[in-house]
Amino acid sequence: MRRRFFVAGAVASTAALRVASPAWAQGDPLPSWNDGPNKRSIVDFVTRTTTPGGRDWIPLPERIATFDNDGTLWTEQPMYFQTAFAVDRVKALAPRHPEWRTTEPFRSILADDRTELAQLGEKALLEAVAATHAGVTTEEFKKIVLDWLATARHPRFKRPYTDLVYQPMLELLAWLRANQFKTFIVSGGGSEFMRPWTERTYGIPPEQVIGSSGVTRYVMQSPDKPVLLKEARVEFVDNGPGKAVGINQYIGRRPYFAFGNSDGDQQMLEWTAAGDGLRYMGLVHHTDAVREYAYDRNSPIGRLDTAWDEAVRRKWTVVDMKNDWKVIYPFELR
Amino acid sequence: MRRRFFVAGAVASTAALRVASPAWAQGDPLPSWNDGPNKRSIVDFVTRTTTPGGRDWIPLPERIATFDNDGTLWTEQPMYFQTAFAVDRVKALAPRHPEWRTTEPFRSILADDRTELAQLGEKALLEAVAATHAGVTTEEFKKIVLDWLATARHPRFKRPYTDLVYQPMLELLAWLRANQFKTFIVSGGGSEFMRPWTERTYGIPPEQVIGSSGVTRYVMQSPDKPVLLKEARVEFVDNGPGKAVGINQYIGRRPYFAFGNSDGDQQMLEWTAAGDGLRYMGLVHHTDAVREYAYDRNSPIGRLDTAWDEAVRRKWTVVDMKNDWKVIYPFELR
Repeated sequence: MRRRFFVAGAVASTAALRVASPAWAQGDPLPSWNDGPNKRSIVDFVTRTTTPGGRDWIPLPERIATFDNDGTLWTEQPMYFQTAFAVDRVKALAPRHPEWRTTEPFRSILADDRTELAQLGEKALLEAVAATHAGVTTEEFKKIVLDWLATARHPRFKRPYTDLVYQPMLELLAWLRANQFKTFIVSGGGSEFMRPWTERTYGIPPEQVIGSSGVTRYVMQSPDKPVLLKEARVEFVDNGPGKAVGINQYIGRRPYFAFGNSDGDQQMLEWTAAGDGLRYMGLVHHTDAVREYAYDRNSPIGRLDTAWDEAVRRKWTVVDMKNDWKVIYPFELR
Repeated sequence: MRRRFFVAGAVASTAALRVASPAWAQGDPLPSWNDGPNKRSIVDFVTRTTTPGGRDWIPLPERIATFDNDGTLWTEQPMYFQTAFAVDRVKALAPRHPEWRTTEPFRSILADDRTELAQLGEKALLEAVAATHAGVTTEEFKKIVLDWLATARHPRFKRPYTDLVYQPMLELLAWLRANQFKTFIVSGGGSEFMRPWTERTYGIPPEQVIGSSGVTRYVMQSPDKPVLLKEARVEFVDNGPGKAVGINQYIGRRPYFAFGNSDGDQQMLEWTAAGDGLRYMGLVHHTDAVREYAYDRNSPIGRLDTAWDEAVRRKWTVVDMKNDWKVIYPFELR
């Protein structure tokens, strides 16, 4: 165990450096971002808040940056990647659960009813995840996630899901950290689904990953060998107002920088904006059907509607993926 | 707000350095600890786990150390300091709540029934805290805590409560951090009661403070001005098995080093011990009635009974405060 995690940590650091160093040498910390007002708004914010003696300077311990995950750091179409994971788990476990053929969301999953599936909210998804993992320990769950990531492939790109992270956001994360911002994920996805791989993929350690969670129970499995057993109950839904609640509960400081992509991130941005001093609020608008996906107000997944209106009204940044990003995925660079 | 937090952060760093530097110059990272097997067990653990190439070396990102707060980092007698805080809040708010004269725990609090009070468990205490703060925002609560700390005095020592932290533990925290351990508080106390002052007092930032918590609700107080309103419901009790659950939920990694002082810390130590590789489990035994307090198996506060037996059986460190600590409080050094 220890060895794997160390390797993961080392890879994360190296990746972050590899991403950022050549750019910095050329004076551009965000080489995959096209020049324009959105890129400039980021550079301007980081410059102003990290210039010693400047009016907007932020003390080091307060440099908190929060990022949504699905649709903000990696792709979320044609379904949340965690939904794909849950689908595979339900299918694998179905023989032991004949009752699933007639109860939702299991019926739709087993019937490959993609229209129904696409409509499933995060709560239903979490119920499916929780149900398929009741009686599994947290350690076993971690292994199940890593095993799945090693073999599962995205239906369109035919690549591991962790390949489908956004290169411009990796650069942004690395640059913020180089400026002593502490980067957090604040996602509606499950924290135990994300934590096994976020350090390697984003350079974000488990203790900086806030997500939805299920109830766990402390059980002494054998003498002196306690485990945490995952129960089939949702404990916390880290979405919408829950993101502001979660930020307060887990971090206890208000972010100065926050990025999301959907209405589920609206309150996180509002909560960020309500702090004093200079704050940065950003949304990713999915506008690139060729290189990624194009969707907003009418999408059942990652709907961007009221948050978009608020962003326009309050002059928050709305990234136009098609025009702002030179590159979408890291594999395009190779 | 920003300025105060920066000052706090700066003070914390300076304090940590001041505590530790002269000691390191003399080759002793823990000058307030008497020589003996307990001090040696700590030095031995840190040396073995941080020696590059050593068999017990721990990769940097995995260096997680967790500490209970009440009775482990600061005094918890004659009542939990948060109980004293709640008592003062109940008295201040009593005129608005005539019903409190006949309902517990308010009746005992208003009647100054110390015997009853001492028996109140942490859940009852949290109920009192939650009730006295319903309708208050998280920002207001922070201010109430800081205002209280500025004026309240401990009944025996006649000093601010934050003066009653343990000098040997401050040295231990600073030394662990100097060895790249990330230090966390994992306490049955309220996270929002601790976070306003832990950075200044212990050098532990809010995002590394895990505690019990109440429900908060996201409310738009005025246009574009959201607040988090504290409700009168307990959300999470971070004690006993809850400490293992909380460590998994908030940190997502297993500690390598854990220190507590009571049966409420037993599962945190068991959870730590169940990891692979070298781990450190420690308990503070309150044996010094002259300089602090002496209590264990029969104390309603900080009872040390089953955890003590387990520590002896499994050869975990049990610090004998009277004999192991040269100094209890930082003010003794001045």
